[in-house]
Amino acid sequence: MSKKISVAIVGATGTVGQRFIQALTNHPLFEIKELVASEKSEGKRYGDIVQWKLSSKLDNKIADFTLKNTQKKLESNLVFSAIDSSVATEIEGSYRKQGKVVISNTKNYRMDENVPLLVPEINADHLGLIELQKKKYKGFIVTNPNCSTIGLALALAPLRKFKIEKVIVSTMQAISGAGYPGVASLDILDNIIPFISGEEEKIKSEPNKIFGKFNGKSIQPEKIKISPMVHRVPIIDGHLMSISVQFKTKPERAKIVEAIKQFKGDTFLQKCPSYATPPVVYFEEENRPQTRLDRDLNQGMSVSVGNLRDCEVFDYKFESLVHNTLRGAALGTILIAEYLAVRKML
Amino acid sequence: MSKKISVAIVGATGTVGQRFIQALTNHPLFEIKELVASEKSEGKRYGDIVQWKLSSKLDNKIADFTLKNTQKKLESNLVFSAIDSSVATEIEGSYRKQGKVVISNTKNYRMDENVPLLVPEINADHLGLIELQKKKYKGFIVTNPNCSTIGLALALAPLRKFKIEKVIVSTMQAISGAGYPGVASLDILDNIIPFISGEEEKIKSEPNKIFGKFNGKSIQPEKIKISPMVHRVPIIDGHLMSISVQFKTKPERAKIVEAIKQFKGDTFLQKCPSYATPPVVYFEEENRPQTRLDRDLNQGMSVSVGNLRDCEVFDYKFESLVHNTLRGAALGTILIAEYLAVRKML
Amino acid sequence: MSKKISVAIVGATGTVGQRFIQALTNHPLFEIKELVASEKSEGKRYGDIVQWKLSSKLDNKIADFTLKNTQKKLESNLVFSAIDSSVATEIEGSYRKQGKVVISNTKNYRMDENVPLLVPEINADHLGLIELQKKKYKGFIVTNPNCSTIGLALALAPLRKFKIEKVIVSTMQAISGAGYPGVASLDILDNIIPFISGEEEKIKSEPNKIFGKFNGKSIQPEKIKISPMVHRVPIIDGHLMSISVQFKTKPERAKIVEAIKQFKGDTFLQKCPSYATPPVVYFEEENRPQTRLDRDLNQGMSVSVGNLRDCEVFDYKFESLVHNTLRGAALGTILIAEYLAVRKML
Amino acid sequence: MSKKISVAIVGATGTVGQRFIQALTNHPLFEIKELVASEKSEGKRYGDIVQWKLSSKLDNKIADFTLKNTQKKLESNLVFSAIDSSVATEIEGSYRKQGKVVISNTKNYRMDENVPLLVPEINADHLGLIELQKKKYKGFIVTNPNCSTIGLALALAPLRKFKIEKVIVSTMQAISGAGYPGVASLDILDNIIPFISGEEEKIKSEPNKIFGKFNGKSIQPEKIKISPMVHRVPIIDGHLMSISVQFKTKPERAKIVEAIKQFKGDTFLQKCPSYATPPVVYFEEENRPQTRLDRDLNQGMSVSVGNLRDCEVFDYKFESLVHNTLRGAALGTILIAEYLAVRKML
Repeated sequence: MSKKISVAIVGATGTVGQRFIQALTNHPLFEIKELVASEKSEGKRYGDIVQWKLSSKLDNKIADFTLKNTQKKLESNLVFSAIDSSVATEIEGSYRKQGKVVISNTKNYRMDENVPLLVPEINADHLGLIELQKKKYKGFIVTNPNCSTIGLALALAPLRKFKIEKVIVSTMQAISGAGYPGVASLDILDNIIPFISGEEEKIKSEPNKIFGKFNGKSIQPEKIKISPMVHRVPIIDGHLMSISVQFKTKPERAKIVEAIKQFKGDTFLQKCPSYATPPVVYFEEENRPQTRLDRDLNQGMSVSVGNLRDCEVFDYKFESLVHNTLRGAALGTILIAEYLAVRKML
Repeated sequence: MSKKISVAIVGATGTVGQRFIQALTNHPLFEIKELVASEKSEGKRYGDIVQWKLSSKLDNKIADFTLKNTQKKLESNLVFSAIDSSVATEIEGSYRKQGKVVISNTKNYRMDENVPLLVPEINADHLGLIELQKKKYKGFIVTNPNCSTIGLALALAPLRKFKIEKVIVSTMQAISGAGYPGVASLDILDNIIPFISGEEEKIKSEPNKIFGKFNGKSIQPEKIKISPMVHRVPIIDGHLMSISVQFKTKPERAKIVEAIKQFKGDTFLQKCPSYATPPVVYFEEENRPQTRLDRDLNQGMSVSVGNLRDCEVFDYKFESLVHNTLRGAALGTILIAEYLAVRKML
Repeated sequence: MSKKISVAIVGATGTVGQRFIQALTNHPLFEIKELVASEKSEGKRYGDIVQWKLSSKLDNKIADFTLKNTQKKLESNLVFSAIDSSVATEIEGSYRKQGKVVISNTKNYRMDENVPLLVPEINADHLGLIELQKKKYKGFIVTNPNCSTIGLALALAPLRKFKIEKVIVSTMQAISGAGYPGVASLDILDNIIPFISGEEEKIKSEPNKIFGKFNGKSIQPEKIKISPMVHRVPIIDGHLMSISVQFKTKPERAKIVEAIKQFKGDTFLQKCPSYATPPVVYFEEENRPQTRLDRDLNQGMSVSVGNLRDCEVFDYKFESLVHNTLRGAALGTILIAEYLAVRKML
Repeated sequence: MSKKISVAIVGATGTVGQRFIQALTNHPLFEIKELVASEKSEGKRYGDIVQWKLSSKLDNKIADFTLKNTQKKLESNLVFSAIDSSVATEIEGSYRKQGKVVISNTKNYRMDENVPLLVPEINADHLGLIELQKKKYKGFIVTNPNCSTIGLALALAPLRKFKIEKVIVSTMQAISGAGYPGVASLDILDNIIPFISGEEEKIKSEPNKIFGKFNGKSIQPEKIKISPMVHRVPIIDGHLMSISVQFKTKPERAKIVEAIKQFKGDTFLQKCPSYATPPVVYFEEENRPQTRLDRDLNQGMSVSVGNLRDCEVFDYKFESLVHNTLRGAALGTILIAEYLAVRKML
């Protein structure tokens, strides 16, 4: 893999697009070749258009890129998409027809029966759908789940062998999850909003697809009953969630902790530059994970789980934390691409 | 009731003590006569000792009060206590033996079998315990529940007729709940701490005592299974909580909303100056209650409930919000005293 | 003044418009008769259109008002304007030509030579401009200064008799000053922005007009050299500013404090319902005023000044705090109208 | 320099001590050999005692260190001190007498005539004082300035050649500057406190010592008149300050910007691992530097300066930002030690 793979970033000016750029600058496998944004930015210099919101400075070379629009033919075969969902169905679909590989952080194709909704540590076998897609469309799309879904799915993944039946989860989600400008400061300083449009639907359905069985043709979703209640809180980055779980039969506490500690990705995944060891970190301290202290663990790629204890209503309860714009968005999406690269599926 | 009742405030320098003072200055029924604090403040001027943390200015007359210590005999028969729990058992017990009426916001006597744990809208009949106490101790103690308990108990109270079996609740609690200096700013800015010492125990047990049946001799606690998960969040005032409820038989949604809207205190309570109408406010908007917008509703005395909807795991889920230092502490405690005054039980 | 004066509120849906409504509901002198907003809200119910952002509930009667557009003839003679500055010149001008009295919180006419820029405690004599306006336009406009200007001007007003020559001021301004949606939360949580568009220009020029001499025909502005540096900070309400002042001759400290304490409005002003006593509150404590603790002083109508001390470079330095949406906007504007009413100038 | 220099960290459990540990773990020149804390921690395991507050995990090897007390003889010759100022005079003095090199972040010896108050980019020549100290005490002390001083001194350093006469500065300082537990959250959420004990004294005097002339025997302080006004704001890290400067003769703006851009450390300094290029970063954007966006620039070692513009009262005004716990404390102190190492003065 001596030569880097050229990539295009679609939706390059948004908050996730900026995170893509930050993470793919000097990436060992990929090289940014094209930046794509909306019609009106066409032909303009990226550095002149973008409202750069990250604390690391925008790379000078990247700033000098000329923006393409989404109608332009792309040179790169690999496309990272953080495009707005209002146009994602058409544009990502169009790239797929042109034979491109689209790794998308946008929601539109997540629940499409042909498209893997991938957390590489959990359901890498779902990539079997790729061949089916290629036959129909020439290219293919792989999607990254919703940011809260990732925090929940990675926390539950090590517990699946004990047969999860029911989950009640209450989230405390950072403002960066809403993009830019996103949440007005008057709405969130010293305030909590118990509503995020469409979020509860995603958290209910996406984990069951991720945990589903691939039978060679399609995915049979899991049937865990999941009830989410979502909240926007005055936090910059990091989605914390309190999770209560009912199993078919209550396992011993020590077995669960052991399962979390042993949980890891396959050997391909372990070769991926963005893969974190371990993917799920367990804290014994009763007051952890904490959002600001733990969100950046392993460059923001590990999910943190802590304070597993008996639940008075279900079997167990615990907390989970995910960095919503890193593991939960840009870096999670890049990990998918790395995995495809390592498995030579690009 | 032409003459005001003299009161002493014990624990007068703390955050709840300050709220007591704020609310009892110019109160129609009560008049502050004595301020009591720890040994080391004995004989000092209140205004010189207190670190006043409220945005309304400290009354000049109150500032000139000379602090007594807890060993001093009190002139007032009615004592409001916000004393530290490390000494509350002894001191509140001692006042009781002296024949005083102690209305306490401290936890020590809350689960004592002789002591009412009172939310006047819910379990005024528990005041029957007073006579039993008087026989044993001359005076009596009545306690105000934990601040989160009040937000939960008042939200559940209207639903009790549908027979609640299980409750899972996740709280997002304000820093003012920890007193002063309380939570270090480095621990809470841009952070959430999923732990508050002793809090989950209180939320599990207190509502069942409040909802218990008084048979003339003792209280038979309710047996609702309650599983709380608590969080400290970067909010100044207001505890928001997400609540999932399982009933014996699922009632219609409209019936629940109707029950909330019709919920109110008895006719004595309606004469109390601090009684709020309605005690539980229902919001139809899916994004309410919000902490900063709604905590001050009805002078911070109403609990706000909103967004009642089907739960995928239990029957229903909804949000509840209580102003933790007003309804959840000082004003809730004062409401108890007002109720005793109106019923001539002082 | 037995019958209330009918008023129209223009720009009724914005944050200042909402504050107007809050303050004019049950006002002793004024009664809201008409709400005016942009073309696209015409004919719609106010309660259906407004995103109500205040913690006190919107009055039901007001919610039922039907919105008018700015082209409609108004019944009321008195107009409170919080209209967007992009259209204020034309619309406020048009009301004036129709003979209306326009009391405006918008910047457009503030520096107009015919229009008083009024802080009633300071320059009530500038109302002499009204007659000149009436001759030209039938009606007249009076404007309320920028919110930071008010905090600065009221703090400096008592010091003017000592002949102020130079002022350096650094502001820390709340997000509510930017309206809604205003500042994106991602831009301000755990952040300070050292820039607010157009703000420094206003702070430089407005105080000199306010402090100017009215010679019967026009206002000769004062010539204090003012250098402002402005900052947006993660605060909900309240603009705090650090002020350094150079006088012609350095006065004694005690004389300045005395001047602040004796500062007050004229006898007409003292009859105004929104007038606060004293208009400028002096704190001796070295750590006051503090934004959250002191912004609501006297219903948010007093400016707080504190910690006056020798300056190593100029003569003195001190802090000033103003509630930007109350004294600094809606209530300050209403005070102007009250003053006109009391003086029978409406 | 193949072998690393052993170091002891005194005051190892505090917030600056933790930053020392974080920065010296895997440092190219230094190796932590000893951790020293107060009497009561003597003999205990560091990981059991420390309340680790940094988002990067505490290194396992360091956690296993056994704490020494300040009376114990140290093996290391180089001592990093972040000890509490109540005991620093005695303890740092004692180490000096034992012949140790003490690089201190504590204030006690900063204004001592024998002790360099060092910003290596500015006054490396002050290290000439070391020989004088050695003669008197065997060992020597070098001190790092106050965190705000560093932000001010580095911002002014490039401007000194234009002869600065007067400076008015208003600071907005992060909570981390107060250590742990430091500022109570109830005192700072949605609040600003215009007072920090002792801070203004340091900002007035320290820059003049740093800018002073060393004549081979003692330092003749500069005579810039500096008037600081300090504020604690709800920010985690980063001190922002607004600065107004009067020169003897007003230089051209372009010359100042050029001076900032050309400002750099000497050739020894450029070999130091913690040295940042450039030490002072200039932003042309009128809304920069911003605290959260820019505090981490160059690993938190560069001071950011921006929006230089004409001042209506003095010659120029601009903003400066320093990361108070990195450049302003631990890393700044380590840079001093690195510089001594490179110059072979240890």
